[in-house]
Amino acid sequence: MEDKSVDDGYYIRKCVELARTAIGCTSPNPMVGCIIVKDGKIVGKGFHPKAGQPHAEVFALRDAGDQAENATAYVSLEPCNHYGRTPPCSEALIKAKVKRVVVGMVDPNPIVASKGVERLREAGIDVTVGVEEELCKRLIEAFAHQMLTGKPFVTLRYSLSVNGRILDQLGKGVAEKGGYYSKLLQEYDAIIVSGSLTEKFISQEPGANQPLQIVIAGNPHQLPAVTEEAFKMIVFADKEIATESDLAQKGIEAVVSDQINLTSILEYCKRQGFCSVLLDMRGSFGDLEGLLREAIEQKVLQKIVMEVLPFWDESSGGESLVALNSLVKRLEVKNLRSRSSNESIVLEGYLIHE
Amino acid sequence: MEDKSVDDGYYIRKCVELARTAIGCTSPNPMVGCIIVKDGKIVGKGFHPKAGQPHAEVFALRDAGDQAENATAYVSLEPCNHYGRTPPCSEALIKAKVKRVVVGMVDPNPIVASKGVERLREAGIDVTVGVEEELCKRLIEAFAHQMLTGKPFVTLRYSLSVNGRILDQLGKGVAEKGGYYSKLLQEYDAIIVSGSLTEKFISQEPGANQPLQIVIAGNPHQLPAVTEEAFKMIVFADKEIATESDLAQKGIEAVVSDQINLTSILEYCKRQGFCSVLLDMRGSFGDLEGLLREAIEQKVLQKIVMEVLPFWDESSGGESLVALNSLVKRLEVKNLRSRSSNESIVLEGYLIHE
Repeated sequence: MEDKSVDDGYYIRKCVELARTAIGCTSPNPMVGCIIVKDGKIVGKGFHPKAGQPHAEVFALRDAGDQAENATAYVSLEPCNHYGRTPPCSEALIKAKVKRVVVGMVDPNPIVASKGVERLREAGIDVTVGVEEELCKRLIEAFAHQMLTGKPFVTLRYSLSVNGRILDQLGKGVAEKGGYYSKLLQEYDAIIVSGSLTEKFISQEPGANQPLQIVIAGNPHQLPAVTEEAFKMIVFADKEIATESDLAQKGIEAVVSDQINLTSILEYCKRQGFCSVLLDMRGSFGDLEGLLREAIEQKVLQKIVMEVLPFWDESSGGESLVALNSLVKRLEVKNLRSRSSNESIVLEGYLIHE
Repeated sequence: MEDKSVDDGYYIRKCVELARTAIGCTSPNPMVGCIIVKDGKIVGKGFHPKAGQPHAEVFALRDAGDQAENATAYVSLEPCNHYGRTPPCSEALIKAKVKRVVVGMVDPNPIVASKGVERLREAGIDVTVGVEEELCKRLIEAFAHQMLTGKPFVTLRYSLSVNGRILDQLGKGVAEKGGYYSKLLQEYDAIIVSGSLTEKFISQEPGANQPLQIVIAGNPHQLPAVTEEAFKMIVFADKEIATESDLAQKGIEAVVSDQINLTSILEYCKRQGFCSVLLDMRGSFGDLEGLLREAIEQKVLQKIVMEVLPFWDESSGGESLVALNSLVKRLEVKNLRSRSSNESIVLEGYLIHE
């Protein structure tokens, strides 16, 4: 038997790339990419563009037409085997008479996991499962988390100087096209920022998803005046601030509550069908520090994105992520990785809550 | 004319690799590597092993023998053109009748820079200068700094949690063979550590240079008991501690002075012919914080090596690199780079003192 594993990895990586075309647009569905290959040639491609639209396999099979017969279908996530808004993709693949299916990862939902694979095998199709699995899992990390826990996937972003000081800023150029911050923004359904921010950014990637910016109003004089059309915003304010700042009259959409806390913000996000939320530590820490403490104590923080700026900071009175009043002394971080973005280094990792 | 640039880069990178065989052993000389190539084949190799020994070119020419005639010599640093402990390498290359010489970088000493290249060209040899120049400069950064300023090259090493807390520890496995810390140790002539350290490390690289460990004795009960043979140590103590701890009677080599400060330590290192010193922030910060302040204020800190450990630290009362009492508020860091070592991320960069 020929060694197909080299090509399999290549095509699954292509599927992931293709899936990411719809980055930020598929919630509450996952991003999925599918490629149909026949005689070493790609004959069909598809990705899931948006909830309510057909799945990736359907677009790829349409694109391949008759050439799907006896071809190999690559798909980053296991084809569904149930009737939802669309008929099951397993049936579509069987009907198209593909010879082989390569699946990046099985469905993260334990109730339906492997059902699609079993159906394909019953129909006599050769199925390979778990190719570039880590990459495929990372692609849908927010979706999987939301699906399994019922809560949005929460990521914390912050900047440090090389000597560990929290900085209230981004590195040069990172919010421009291709910079890590511009790319990060488009990945999230919502981003929580301080009302005190003087600079607010939108993603500069072409055709990017723009997350809803959830602005925490710490005081009535700090409310944003944003005219940028792509900028979607909602203000979270307590009653006092809402009254003083006359939000309604200014036409600013707002959620007013007795006390602003992370639980109520995440509830709001859930109701909106959001899978992913970015807590962005810029601006005044007073507005966001309470939310961060809550995120740690309630174990809802999943991921960190830390930018190390090329500065040794010597200013006095610098902000720091203070010791939190908690029994948890140390959380492990797994899969810590780094990369460059302009003059900064960006680290990413996942918090392990015991 | 053929494009030689691709091969040139390849062979100069090989020279740098070869030069690093003697890592930590050449002070006060630089590491240098030389390769002789004829008809696309390496016919000779050499590196400078130690001050007092012949230069890299001499070893490479010896290795090549008659085959050096009409060959190309690659050398990471410009061949010397003056009589020192050894005759000039420029003359050796001319005598061996090489056809071409490729030089990674010119001599960093402005007084002799390009003299070797000029001599070779006068003799009719084709000379290319400045191939993989950044890499060659990094190879001899400590030597060049010492030669130009008369002072050792000082690097600061420290560990941070992902949330910016200074940690009094190393990451798992980084002090073992192949780990960044084990590799870092062998690069330095001396390493300054706190006397309070319970764990002291030596480089685990095969045949590694072991730096002299300069132990700062903060109190008499913290003096090290090291039996490891490869461990070279000297204690810096003030008079009070020296008397109380009875250093002389215990056979511990010590420098005793009224007050321990970085200036006197660097003076000592200079007298020993050391080019590079690592200030390693482990153990009690009380012992080392004053030295770090001095290093920043006197602008003698050249490089930082920062390890980010895979932890979010929640302990209260954690140490932090405090704001220093200085007019300098922010130092820029250039060439910030990162890499993985086991589960940690290691960042390196160079401080820019205005």
